[in-house]
Amino acid sequence: MKNLLLSALLLLAFTLSAQQKEVTQYVNPFIGTARMGHTYPGATLPFGMVQLSPDTDTLPYAVNGKYNQAVYRYCAGYQHNDPTLVGFSHTHFSGTGHSDLGDILLMPTQGKLQLNPGTADAPQNGYRSAYRHENETASPNYYSVILDDHHIRAELTTSDRVGMHRYTFEEAGPAHLVLDLIHGIYPYENKSVWTFLRLENDSLLTGYRQTNGWARTRTQYFAIAFSKPVKSYGYQNFAPKEVYKGFWGKFDQYHNFPEMAGAQVRVWFDFDVQAGEQLQFKVALSPVSTAGALANLYAEVPHWNFDQLWSAGKQRWQEELGKIQVDMLTAADKTTFYTALYHAYLAPTLYQDVDGSYKGIDQNTHQAKGYNNYTTFSLWDTYRALHPWFNLMQPQRNADMIQSMLAHYRQSVHGMLPVWSHHANENWCMIGYHSVSVIADAAIKGVAGFDQRAALEACVQTARQRSYDGLGYYIDLGYVPEDKNGSSVSKTLEYAYNDWCIAQLAKKIGDMEIYAEFSRRASYYNNVWDPSIGYMRPRLSDGRFRADFDVLSTHGQGFIEGNAWNYSLYVPHQPGSLIQLMGGKQSFVRHLDSLFSMSLPDHYFAGTEDISRDGIIGNYVHGNEPSHHVAYLYPYANAAHRTQFLVRQIMDSMYRPLPGGLGGNDDCGQMSAWYLFSALGFYPVAPGSAMYVLGSPLVKSAELTLPNGKNLRIVAKNQSRKNCYVNSIKLNGQRLTTFEISHAQLLNGGLLEFEMHNLPLLPIPKQ
Amino acid sequence: MKNLLLSALLLLAFTLSAQQKEVTQYVNPFIGTARMGHTYPGATLPFGMVQLSPDTDTLPYAVNGKYNQAVYRYCAGYQHNDPTLVGFSHTHFSGTGHSDLGDILLMPTQGKLQLNPGTADAPQNGYRSAYRHENETASPNYYSVILDDHHIRAELTTSDRVGMHRYTFEEAGPAHLVLDLIHGIYPYENKSVWTFLRLENDSLLTGYRQTNGWARTRTQYFAIAFSKPVKSYGYQNFAPKEVYKGFWGKFDQYHNFPEMAGAQVRVWFDFDVQAGEQLQFKVALSPVSTAGALANLYAEVPHWNFDQLWSAGKQRWQEELGKIQVDMLTAADKTTFYTALYHAYLAPTLYQDVDGSYKGIDQNTHQAKGYNNYTTFSLWDTYRALHPWFNLMQPQRNADMIQSMLAHYRQSVHGMLPVWSHHANENWCMIGYHSVSVIADAAIKGVAGFDQRAALEACVQTARQRSYDGLGYYIDLGYVPEDKNGSSVSKTLEYAYNDWCIAQLAKKIGDMEIYAEFSRRASYYNNVWDPSIGYMRPRLSDGRFRADFDVLSTHGQGFIEGNAWNYSLYVPHQPGSLIQLMGGKQSFVRHLDSLFSMSLPDHYFAGTEDISRDGIIGNYVHGNEPSHHVAYLYPYANAAHRTQFLVRQIMDSMYRPLPGGLGGNDDCGQMSAWYLFSALGFYPVAPGSAMYVLGSPLVKSAELTLPNGKNLRIVAKNQSRKNCYVNSIKLNGQRLTTFEISHAQLLNGGLLEFEMHNLPLLPIPKQ
Repeated sequence: MKNLLLSALLLLAFTLSAQQKEVTQYVNPFIGTARMGHTYPGATLPFGMVQLSPDTDTLPYAVNGKYNQAVYRYCAGYQHNDPTLVGFSHTHFSGTGHSDLGDILLMPTQGKLQLNPGTADAPQNGYRSAYRHENETASPNYYSVILDDHHIRAELTTSDRVGMHRYTFEEAGPAHLVLDLIHGIYPYENKSVWTFLRLENDSLLTGYRQTNGWARTRTQYFAIAFSKPVKSYGYQNFAPKEVYKGFWGKFDQYHNFPEMAGAQVRVWFDFDVQAGEQLQFKVALSPVSTAGALANLYAEVPHWNFDQLWSAGKQRWQEELGKIQVDMLTAADKTTFYTALYHAYLAPTLYQDVDGSYKGIDQNTHQAKGYNNYTTFSLWDTYRALHPWFNLMQPQRNADMIQSMLAHYRQSVHGMLPVWSHHANENWCMIGYHSVSVIADAAIKGVAGFDQRAALEACVQTARQRSYDGLGYYIDLGYVPEDKNGSSVSKTLEYAYNDWCIAQLAKKIGDMEIYAEFSRRASYYNNVWDPSIGYMRPRLSDGRFRADFDVLSTHGQGFIEGNAWNYSLYVPHQPGSLIQLMGGKQSFVRHLDSLFSMSLPDHYFAGTEDISRDGIIGNYVHGNEPSHHVAYLYPYANAAHRTQFLVRQIMDSMYRPLPGGLGGNDDCGQMSAWYLFSALGFYPVAPGSAMYVLGSPLVKSAELTLPNGKNLRIVAKNQSRKNCYVNSIKLNGQRLTTFEISHAQLLNGGLLEFEMHNLPLLPIPKQ
Repeated sequence: MKNLLLSALLLLAFTLSAQQKEVTQYVNPFIGTARMGHTYPGATLPFGMVQLSPDTDTLPYAVNGKYNQAVYRYCAGYQHNDPTLVGFSHTHFSGTGHSDLGDILLMPTQGKLQLNPGTADAPQNGYRSAYRHENETASPNYYSVILDDHHIRAELTTSDRVGMHRYTFEEAGPAHLVLDLIHGIYPYENKSVWTFLRLENDSLLTGYRQTNGWARTRTQYFAIAFSKPVKSYGYQNFAPKEVYKGFWGKFDQYHNFPEMAGAQVRVWFDFDVQAGEQLQFKVALSPVSTAGALANLYAEVPHWNFDQLWSAGKQRWQEELGKIQVDMLTAADKTTFYTALYHAYLAPTLYQDVDGSYKGIDQNTHQAKGYNNYTTFSLWDTYRALHPWFNLMQPQRNADMIQSMLAHYRQSVHGMLPVWSHHANENWCMIGYHSVSVIADAAIKGVAGFDQRAALEACVQTARQRSYDGLGYYIDLGYVPEDKNGSSVSKTLEYAYNDWCIAQLAKKIGDMEIYAEFSRRASYYNNVWDPSIGYMRPRLSDGRFRADFDVLSTHGQGFIEGNAWNYSLYVPHQPGSLIQLMGGKQSFVRHLDSLFSMSLPDHYFAGTEDISRDGIIGNYVHGNEPSHHVAYLYPYANAAHRTQFLVRQIMDSMYRPLPGGLGGNDDCGQMSAWYLFSALGFYPVAPGSAMYVLGSPLVKSAELTLPNGKNLRIVAKNQSRKNCYVNSIKLNGQRLTTFEISHAQLLNGGLLEFEMHNLPLLPIPKQ
């Protein structure tokens, strides 16, 4: 007892000093910016509304209908290998596999005014500029680059709703600020629907741009303050159809005329600068109005002190990231860890003015009362590990996110919780209704701050929306028939998991009728299991399995972002039943092993969008989320050592601290959250359950300041690259005898000790 | 004294009974609907936000660039000679010479569903229908017609913000409601910018349409309630570029899918009807949001009782129109009078939700606090007689209109009062800054309810906006130079008058510095007077008068909607000085007489937009406003009898109680207000002055219930068509010895007696 007290006191002392430690230095925002990580290197705050980042290309219009390439390659606006930048825009997704945003591109230039971005191979023919990585730096809430073609050093920082630009001009002379309101991520010919601008005075612009993109009906309002009065300005409307002029024709609207409008607008502002002079611009966003943007501007950044804003933002990051102090095997690992933590806190994003106003999915302005409203819900990805991570480290924010999802439900004409929503729009990306998982997981784990009964009703209504994506068939037949609705097996499996989540929530609240209804639906995965081949398989509306079937192909086989080999393992909520379907534990382990060890023929790989060749291990595709729980299924079949080996392999191979180091899209932090849990030694296989499966930690030690004020210290004794196996696990000195640990056990804090070894402790085979 | 008291009592008794008299029966909304009156026959309330009226053609896109014809002919959406209707839309201008609006066209049909309007010569090829005037009726707040092609009787009525449709189907069978959101007045290829719709449930639609038209950036929000649940529905997007689909592609968005969007959208709703069945639709508008439209709907028309709504609206009209009870020479005259009064109360229009929310010119949502917010300010027209009329009969509303104009000023990025504004947009139509006249006139006439000092500041700022339409030159040179800015003489003259208005307001407030500044500017008309030819004449920036000059042409001569012959008389504020410029009274009268008696050669008339051949008397063009005061200038030159003769001639020839009976555009009530004043025997020659010039009444008698509670009785003794001359005028028994009467005298009430005669009492010529 005395020892325990002493440990506790020592722990407390350690924690207090640990909290002082600067950890933002370990974040490298360039990780994931090459190839298909689709992260952005720019400045932002944790969950900030502004994501101010350089865009390296625009692909103004899709060429030969090749939308896919543009929509995919430039999801975050930046590709690390690109030699030029087109400017700095204020909204970005982090890690997505589809794109939008890139609003309000600013680009400072000198020399001849040019209003077209130009091309990467001839940047001098447009406003864009070459740049070199040696002149580029990025850290939490700061980005800087030298624009070689314009001899300007650009620096970016942000508050929650305001992006601040500091441009230092090397040379004296006329300077321009180009404001490109055609520019957008995934632009195409008529994406910009309307733009409205007012130069309120010689150093303040307000306006909005409305787009029809991934978000079908989206308007981004903004206000831009200039540190120096503009000398002259003008705009050009590039729309193929000129704006209707009427009696506006009596003015020269295109030069020094304070109200501007059109569908495809680029604006320029002229300044004279001295050598070494700095021009600064503050860009405030609002989801609802230019008045809101102005209020945000004045509330958050009433000053012109760039360094102060940068420092305040860095401190905000330190507060969030510093809640976990890790000791790793290498400095590189530490960079990987803190960058993953950083990436995990980039989405969902704040979506309300300082007064709580936000635009709802009904396109009306609403007030968030008693919570902060969020958007950017990449739920098919993030329900798996990111929201569970929030339940551990950001429960208040997760409750606010759930309140935001419930508001979406109330405002939805479909009567549904969000599927994939951003900026007052449902974009319907991917499948399932995984909001219910986020809600159930939070409720089961005791996260307060939302109305569980109202949430259950929202979940049930969502799950009963027959018109949604094969759901009517699923309700009637017990599966989605492939001849009626594609990707039918994936949908059936995910609906079944979602329904289990609803059942868990109902049970917690005590609604046993709903519990029974959705528990029944939760077993519908059985209906797409073909015992004759031992795989989940698409079934037709007449009840037969589809004849033509390839268990390795990801295209047209009833699955999405996965093949049957992987997706057949998608019963996260009832692995025991799955093991039975698969013929028992040995057979199950054989299937798992085959997944990780087989050599997938090249032709199966070709055309798969979301992964790169080194993003797979055998036939296991870490870049696609449906298998994220798979490596953690071994313990259910008494083969925890395989989990221990594989999760270490995945961490080492899929998360390298390099621009091209991510094995796939970071997907709004889901990939990073997988890493965070895994690095700490446990993973939420079935969100909606309070249990985590124990894996193999990568940290040497970790100190978590939990939201309840308690501390959890994780120690991996004898940690090394080779010692990936866990021989024993103790929680506060007591040996754990199962392969699971509960959320409550973690929240209780104390010491979680892993004893690492280079050889597995194999289970004694059953007779 | 006793007699006076008796008179007063008798007067009161008369008034009370007079107020009971039904006068809406005398209104004929078809007056002005043929040719160029540009009025609409549909249902509306006094100054109502909804103007629900049939549109007879759409001219979907301008052909061969012939915008002008479309923009002009269909200003009100309806031309009485057209044989077909395309449907019923909810917003209309009354009497303008330029067009916009025509929002939310509903058309009930039977038979094959057709989503294109078709053409007038083959209505069966579209949703439009033939109709016959014998089956058409219109009265205040009611319109009805039988749609021959669909065997449907359509009836329309309104509240302030809600239009109600009652469709009676003669035949059983499938019926459709077409909602055409491409339709608009003055439509052209890309006028519809974006449309967003939600079927909230089986009998409620919400949505908005954004357009780029005369109002450059305008969004009309609405909600439509159906009396019967819709059976099925769908939409088609006619935009040349398809809307971006993204993952919406997984749904059949075009059939029974509750969220719809696109730039060029037509929607249909299917119902089954029995023979004789009535379907009703309530369409609520909002300037700010669909939530606002719903609130307006529930607040104003919570029921489905069409007749009750109609009756309530008719009563509202009776209350407004019944404040004047007239006795006329003929029933036709009475129709002309009450229809003019009706037309005078159609604009400006209410522009706020029931909670006071409206969209400002900055496109932000504002709250009207302590007043009702109005829009549709056709100020170049209406400052002349309509707003002065409001100062007499609708001072509270005029004060609210001024408050609305001041809000516009505060929200204007140009720092200007409205020029021609509608629906949160400045459309810059015509010239001058006549808001200042409206404000000065109200202030001088003692209309309370706005801040006169703030109003003066707004006036002054507006008049100092150098970038506006030659105003910088005017301020610097004392005139607008024609080589720098066209229509320079008209602008100089009107600016000078406007400046005199500002001076009057300043004087009233006691700001003598502003009074001096603007009194000086008020004389700038002298700077465009060419004494060598005796006309106002365009001057160049070098000070010379332009050499090439035609005093009869209205094109390219430095004038707009008028020639030098007419416009040289535009010094309403200083007719004495004008008479001196013109060489004295005799010379002045000669010029006036020539105006009314000359025969204008045909080639001068060709191409003049706003008038018809029978809209002129000699070279006097009543259909164009700049001469509206001209007939009242004679008394300043001792020739009042010419005024008396001419105003009677104008009333008789330009205001006939027929669809084609108006001599020109009613111009938001200005033409009607000219008639109303004239018919009562006085006219405000120079708004901003408290004085009216006395003319020749057309009424036999009139009883005005003044807003201050007093009554003014006007009697024309010996009134007849021939007896157009006034031999004496008595106010409460006292003979008037001048040709003017003051606003205060009128407001004081009592009896104004004109003694009519068939011969003029000629003034004794001066030696």
